[in-house]
Amino acid sequence: MDTSFDCLSCFFRQALDAARRVSDDAGFHEQLLRQMALWIHEADLKEPPPVMAQRLYRHLYTLTGVNDPFADAKEKDNELALSLLPELKQRVVKSSDPFKLAVRLAIAGNLIDLGARSDLAEEEILHAINNVEEIPFSGDLERLRKKSEEAESIFYLADNAGESVLDQLLIQQLGPHRITVAVRGKPILNDATMHDAETTGLTDIVTVISNGSDVPGTLLSECTEEVVNHFNNADLVISKGQGNFETLSKAPREICFLLKVKCSVIAEETGHPLGNQALIWHTPGTSC
Amino acid sequence: MDTSFDCLSCFFRQALDAARRVSDDAGFHEQLLRQMALWIHEADLKEPPPVMAQRLYRHLYTLTGVNDPFADAKEKDNELALSLLPELKQRVVKSSDPFKLAVRLAIAGNLIDLGARSDLAEEEILHAINNVEEIPFSGDLERLRKKSEEAESIFYLADNAGESVLDQLLIQQLGPHRITVAVRGKPILNDATMHDAETTGLTDIVTVISNGSDVPGTLLSECTEEVVNHFNNADLVISKGQGNFETLSKAPREICFLLKVKCSVIAEETGHPLGNQALIWHTPGTSC
Repeated sequence: MDTSFDCLSCFFRQALDAARRVSDDAGFHEQLLRQMALWIHEADLKEPPPVMAQRLYRHLYTLTGVNDPFADAKEKDNELALSLLPELKQRVVKSSDPFKLAVRLAIAGNLIDLGARSDLAEEEILHAINNVEEIPFSGDLERLRKKSEEAESIFYLADNAGESVLDQLLIQQLGPHRITVAVRGKPILNDATMHDAETTGLTDIVTVISNGSDVPGTLLSECTEEVVNHFNNADLVISKGQGNFETLSKAPREICFLLKVKCSVIAEETGHPLGNQALIWHTPGTSC
Repeated sequence: MDTSFDCLSCFFRQALDAARRVSDDAGFHEQLLRQMALWIHEADLKEPPPVMAQRLYRHLYTLTGVNDPFADAKEKDNELALSLLPELKQRVVKSSDPFKLAVRLAIAGNLIDLGARSDLAEEEILHAINNVEEIPFSGDLERLRKKSEEAESIFYLADNAGESVLDQLLIQQLGPHRITVAVRGKPILNDATMHDAETTGLTDIVTVISNGSDVPGTLLSECTEEVVNHFNNADLVISKGQGNFETLSKAPREICFLLKVKCSVIAEETGHPLGNQALIWHTPGTSC
């Protein structure tokens, strides 16, 4: 999708959050914000929003040498999700519809998105997971159930650290043997990388590959050939989160997007209400 | 006060809101947002935030000839507040502490600030007024009670349309004969002007003067000599809202600020929690 005018104020919030994560120096914060203003002044709004985040964090790395300002946040969110996992596995197994609950918990994990929110509290994450069945859900779940039963190969595009721990619940339901999971190629925001997949045990249950890119989404033109092949040839592609949606909403194949609708731009683009757990089928040739 | 880094994303939101109020043309929206980006890139952050709003709306007027994009919104908010006024007068009279309730209702009206929020719904205004005594209140009310009893002259700086109708409740409690109210000199955001004061009956109960300026605040260097004289010489100055606070927080006299804390920047600057009804005494020589 294109960058919406409403994304521009969010870019500023992201830039300030990024600046504060790497430095206490107000002069540095100001420098980065003035740079962001210039980028916005000249921005190509045909680019999906994650490309601006890529530009911001590359610039930050050039200025400071810090290439993973979210390292601590990711570790904390992984630990939190891992601490919940045994009980959630039991909850899924005992559920009257384990598949549906696993989908809902995987989407609940998508709240852990520090690009959309700079100030996410642990209590909010716990509340969303504990009360997952009370959050409004929209989308054709039965189509996913049917497609996943038929698929011999599933390509699963992970999103954030912490969230990708809860993805294990859905991956177990789908059957790990036929799944390949893609994570980001380099640290960007709090998105999951191979390091997160390894330290949280994801690589022990399923094949995980790096997408080779530092965009907080899946920009196919910057992904490895292996990733593009999986994307093109898998019987089913499941894509988690807003960043993957923003970069793949015009893609030339069917995709099942699973995401928490975290901003009004995505609500408008998808037609799913703000705050919803959304399951969105993308049909080639459409923009959603 | 200076412009905070956190204000910058809000400037973008304001610019987009302004653009949408005067035009449906996406190309025009983009032009205005790119201009705002350039202003932010070059901004003097020592200016208080309302100066950026002044720049934005002056530019909008130059481009479109529309000088009062909030005219309909102001009329609607005035009508809403006027419809509530008779019942609120009764509620104040019957209260165990009419002065305190009038202060609280005047602050509740400060929610009607379309600079701070583009999407304010009538239900929220009604809820805030109906439940005014449940909203957290902070500040030294007894000092205001005492000072207002002693004062022979009170200078009252109004803020927004709709809000200034509810100010009538407090003005009646203070005693209109010793009060002069200042309104904005020209239309800016949804701030109250002489037109609002006249059409809502404020001019029938108290002396109202224009401050001569189109800043959504009180920038003394741009106000009329009459306003500056009142400001300097009144026994008590009562100032409503964030815009007046932002432009007068370093002023060389004692001021009693009454405002709803509507953003984290003001919460941090004042030390009063977000969402609170705040009564803030400014002492000359301090920055709050």
